[in-house]
Amino acid sequence: MINVGVLGATGAVGQRFVQLLADHPWFHLQTLTASERSAGKPYGKVVNWRLDAPYPDKVSDVVVTPTTVESLKDCDLVFSALPADVATQLETEIANAGIAVCSNARSHRMDPDVPLVIPEVNPDHLGLIDVQRDRGRGGFIVTNPNCSTIVLTLALAPLRSFEFHNVHAATMQAISGGGFAGVAAMEIYDNVIPYIGAEEEKIETEIVKIMGTFNGSEVIPAPIQVSASCHRVPVIDGHTIAVWADVKEPVDEVKKAYATFKSPFSNLPLQPAKAIELLDQPDRPQPRLDRNRGRGMTVSVGRIREGLRFVALGHNTIRGAAGASVLNAELIYSRKYL
Amino acid sequence: MINVGVLGATGAVGQRFVQLLADHPWFHLQTLTASERSAGKPYGKVVNWRLDAPYPDKVSDVVVTPTTVESLKDCDLVFSALPADVATQLETEIANAGIAVCSNARSHRMDPDVPLVIPEVNPDHLGLIDVQRDRGRGGFIVTNPNCSTIVLTLALAPLRSFEFHNVHAATMQAISGGGFAGVAAMEIYDNVIPYIGAEEEKIETEIVKIMGTFNGSEVIPAPIQVSASCHRVPVIDGHTIAVWADVKEPVDEVKKAYATFKSPFSNLPLQPAKAIELLDQPDRPQPRLDRNRGRGMTVSVGRIREGLRFVALGHNTIRGAAGASVLNAELIYSRKYL
Amino acid sequence: MINVGVLGATGAVGQRFVQLLADHPWFHLQTLTASERSAGKPYGKVVNWRLDAPYPDKVSDVVVTPTTVESLKDCDLVFSALPADVATQLETEIANAGIAVCSNARSHRMDPDVPLVIPEVNPDHLGLIDVQRDRGRGGFIVTNPNCSTIVLTLALAPLRSFEFHNVHAATMQAISGGGFAGVAAMEIYDNVIPYIGAEEEKIETEIVKIMGTFNGSEVIPAPIQVSASCHRVPVIDGHTIAVWADVKEPVDEVKKAYATFKSPFSNLPLQPAKAIELLDQPDRPQPRLDRNRGRGMTVSVGRIREGLRFVALGHNTIRGAAGASVLNAELIYSRKYL
Amino acid sequence: MINVGVLGATGAVGQRFVQLLADHPWFHLQTLTASERSAGKPYGKVVNWRLDAPYPDKVSDVVVTPTTVESLKDCDLVFSALPADVATQLETEIANAGIAVCSNARSHRMDPDVPLVIPEVNPDHLGLIDVQRDRGRGGFIVTNPNCSTIVLTLALAPLRSFEFHNVHAATMQAISGGGFAGVAAMEIYDNVIPYIGAEEEKIETEIVKIMGTFNGSEVIPAPIQVSASCHRVPVIDGHTIAVWADVKEPVDEVKKAYATFKSPFSNLPLQPAKAIELLDQPDRPQPRLDRNRGRGMTVSVGRIREGLRFVALGHNTIRGAAGASVLNAELIYSRKYL
Repeated sequence: MINVGVLGATGAVGQRFVQLLADHPWFHLQTLTASERSAGKPYGKVVNWRLDAPYPDKVSDVVVTPTTVESLKDCDLVFSALPADVATQLETEIANAGIAVCSNARSHRMDPDVPLVIPEVNPDHLGLIDVQRDRGRGGFIVTNPNCSTIVLTLALAPLRSFEFHNVHAATMQAISGGGFAGVAAMEIYDNVIPYIGAEEEKIETEIVKIMGTFNGSEVIPAPIQVSASCHRVPVIDGHTIAVWADVKEPVDEVKKAYATFKSPFSNLPLQPAKAIELLDQPDRPQPRLDRNRGRGMTVSVGRIREGLRFVALGHNTIRGAAGASVLNAELIYSRKYL
Repeated sequence: MINVGVLGATGAVGQRFVQLLADHPWFHLQTLTASERSAGKPYGKVVNWRLDAPYPDKVSDVVVTPTTVESLKDCDLVFSALPADVATQLETEIANAGIAVCSNARSHRMDPDVPLVIPEVNPDHLGLIDVQRDRGRGGFIVTNPNCSTIVLTLALAPLRSFEFHNVHAATMQAISGGGFAGVAAMEIYDNVIPYIGAEEEKIETEIVKIMGTFNGSEVIPAPIQVSASCHRVPVIDGHTIAVWADVKEPVDEVKKAYATFKSPFSNLPLQPAKAIELLDQPDRPQPRLDRNRGRGMTVSVGRIREGLRFVALGHNTIRGAAGASVLNAELIYSRKYL
Repeated sequence: MINVGVLGATGAVGQRFVQLLADHPWFHLQTLTASERSAGKPYGKVVNWRLDAPYPDKVSDVVVTPTTVESLKDCDLVFSALPADVATQLETEIANAGIAVCSNARSHRMDPDVPLVIPEVNPDHLGLIDVQRDRGRGGFIVTNPNCSTIVLTLALAPLRSFEFHNVHAATMQAISGGGFAGVAAMEIYDNVIPYIGAEEEKIETEIVKIMGTFNGSEVIPAPIQVSASCHRVPVIDGHTIAVWADVKEPVDEVKKAYATFKSPFSNLPLQPAKAIELLDQPDRPQPRLDRNRGRGMTVSVGRIREGLRFVALGHNTIRGAAGASVLNAELIYSRKYL
Repeated sequence: MINVGVLGATGAVGQRFVQLLADHPWFHLQTLTASERSAGKPYGKVVNWRLDAPYPDKVSDVVVTPTTVESLKDCDLVFSALPADVATQLETEIANAGIAVCSNARSHRMDPDVPLVIPEVNPDHLGLIDVQRDRGRGGFIVTNPNCSTIVLTLALAPLRSFEFHNVHAATMQAISGGGFAGVAAMEIYDNVIPYIGAEEEKIETEIVKIMGTFNGSEVIPAPIQVSASCHRVPVIDGHTIAVWADVKEPVDEVKKAYATFKSPFSNLPLQPAKAIELLDQPDRPQPRLDRNRGRGMTVSVGRIREGLRFVALGHNTIRGAAGASVLNAELIYSRKYL
């Protein structure tokens, strides 16, 4: 078993990490960190469990530690649910101290030698781990993209057998994306907020790196331009995205590409039966009905029609955050980077 | 005063007509029609008033009549909130019987000699009234577009001073668009439904007619192609639309066009101070905060940015339905077609 | 294995039955009935699965039969999710034909010889099965109470060790209680509806029977008077009830009674670890966070305070409907009434 | 014209004060105070207007002052929307400085010589103003009750012609009661929160004072005991309350008392046509449909039935907060206390 820790274990993404790791077959949840205020107390006493998934009793007695490099000395790998302002420096220090970091923070996503990975899309980018090591780092950092980027990029992956260069994407994002307290009820109830700070930029820049080509030493950006418009809607979990791509092939060919899409690996514990599920019904995917497919790890795609237009949906705090990091860690472990 | 009637006065759009007409300075609300079941009873006894606007007591004693041509003999003009399957034949009969029809139904929108009008966009299309009369019709039919089409087309109107041919639009539509009982709570709560029957086709075909050129006898379709993706979101009133248009001019020029947009008429009673309001704040327009601008008749536009991208918003049952028809009728009256 | 059927298998409660029975260790899901329109087709083709629980693929090929006695000839026991107007006669015919009926319909709940059972509260009322048999019936009918009644009665069960005669209850009920299409979004969104047809009467009469005393031949009503006020609130699943009971014992004694409450049986497959869970936090129970405790079969109780006042919560379509019937069937089977 | 100020003019209640006072016939909105951060800037630049009522442009240029006694030297009367921790001392200082204070803060509600007033219920309690003056205070403080207390107490007022001593009340309170940012969307969406800090105590103690008897020098508490259970529900505005009172008179007598209830004054500008409106329909009052009756100043009552049970509803930020204070001020002015 690999000993793992969760940085920022009491927040929204942190709780998802704990839920996904409590019974993990490969990873032993060794360390949970939180703010100074919570340190020294059992996790069960300090966490205000807000997920609708049941609370894993077995972690109740884990004593929370402060979020410092010293607290992690028993960990082989840590998952970071830290806010970006804290993550920037701390994740670097942890990696330098010889520990693997799988981070959901945006801080290092665009660093040239840090892989920005969706396992089904660009597993070969993990080769950047060697680039980090070659410059003397004991551990390494691997990041997963922003929640919307993951759903959009995975939904575009089957189109890579065709040619396309321009993508328009209008997101309808869930309130859980803002954390437990990030969106006030008075803001979003009976409302749409057509703005999520820096979200459009993240989507537009991250996808170019993820879909880029790794040549053994660096990632060559993909020749794709995305124009995103991001909106918050009154949905608890699940980001829905209306997508256009300038694919010229007929709709039937495109549907075939979705139906036959296969993950380039198998047997990862959190991997869903289908990374992408093509839905036939005319009114799907829908967040409430489809977000939990594949235990929240499947991206659903539907309404593929001329244009080329379609609708994609994924669970933003599972596939789009904590689950993304855990799947990255599983890929890292299975490819013997630990 | 012009004597007017409302066809289908007890439904969602019908109630909006009654609200807008109860105190109208030009139109006297003479006749209210509904199903056989309600006919013969006072409106106040049969209507289940569901608007959050106060119920206009003065119409309580109007005796509801059946929805037939005979019931309308005292009307100069009628507003139609009928479902399409009923409207197709009945509106034709009413117009043939010498009465003006302002219809919100989709039945006759694409008829070659029926104007499909947004007053600020194509008031000259009312010239088709003469085409109808020339072929011997006593009255006439004028239609307003679908709710989403109105918001989108009005929001594109200031761009006509530039050149553009391709539009992408992702709508986030309110539940009131489906009528009082059209959308079940279990369907839309905590959810997005990425499909509204025939809505995308309506938008894509109607806008080409509205933005087309009237040459005195017919409308030449506009060389514009719209690709729409329609979604229902958990909002009571107000359709939000993310729009892309292939305008090449810089964003500042575009903003100027919005800020200086003027209606081609004035002094219509329901006309808002601004048909289009350009909002500066980075997170606007929002349906709950902006749908009631101009008593629900103003379309708000914001987030104009490179792409060219922006977000438009309008009240779907006022500007997008009943108010659209009433404004058309005011234009018709002011241009002496009655 | 006992062969079972579900009557009305495509509706909201019917789908919950299918979900709970698809992998049941004692019951084999043999027969699914629905309207004539669906009969003859595979369940997977006619059901519009609307639960957020995953659809059980194994039932996809079960051919739906019409809802008639003839269709049930291979069943030992059937679960009824029928509407009351159909259930009244049909359930009687099925029971007379020698089949056991566990019904969620209200039709026979107050019949003198039909048990109205919550397993943890009045398992001995199953003795009425013998009364039914004594009058020559081949099968029998056992009913479960209305959804709100179940949550309220189970929450009052630990108080039976004290004396109380008057109960006030204000319910805040979920929209799923009205079925998939029963509540329009325009009715309940941003709203409370302070009326649910016949719900208050059901609560007030059913509880008196359930808490009554079975003397071997009939049930003597309990000397309890309930005054209920029922409200629909914008919650998907989970009925919350504010309860007052004229218990005189101190709050600490009452809390002890809740903490030590035990089910009078064990080892029923759908039985939760705790039938009643006492929550300590000052702001619990909450429907979204607590409705799925015990896979939806646990009733949560919190905020016990002087008055005597407390708040109860249970999942209305699991513990309050389909799960209630299945637990009744498990009790029936374990007590060898089949 | 009386010169008035609003303390804490940018918050949720503060904005309501500004909305209600911008065009007031008796009061001239002279001064708007806010935090140090906003002081010195025009109101239009610092307020983030979040009401769905239109923003009153005329106040845009009022320069915001800090919340100090010095800032108020031109005011005859001030309305306080301050948080309690600030209000306790500052309101005292302002009153001592000779200014009338109408406060929505809870700080001084239970002070023996401070009137806690609902104009329709206990206008004579304003006599305590003289008690304050008798002890040498230049100005005075008058408070309005908590939002839920106002709705409940006003709804009970017509019952004072009968005898009753025990009241049970279960509230279903709107999210706006927590201020713009007080309730996170993740907390309340698809949920009920059965706890609002200190709310039950406020209701239970305040009503006893309001319904008490003023004997010329002090208020003798009313012999009424209220047992409240408070819940937050996903509604934007409007508190709904299920009420029981031990009135023995028949329901018809009670309905008559509601139908004939009259305010003990007339001609106050904000006074609604009916302080209490009795609704006949079986499913009313409902917050979305009824909260705006009487411009938000009418409390609606319905479902009066044996028990005695009924449902009351009022707009929590108008009748329950800012409007309550303004109506108090109007009463004070009309009774010549200024």
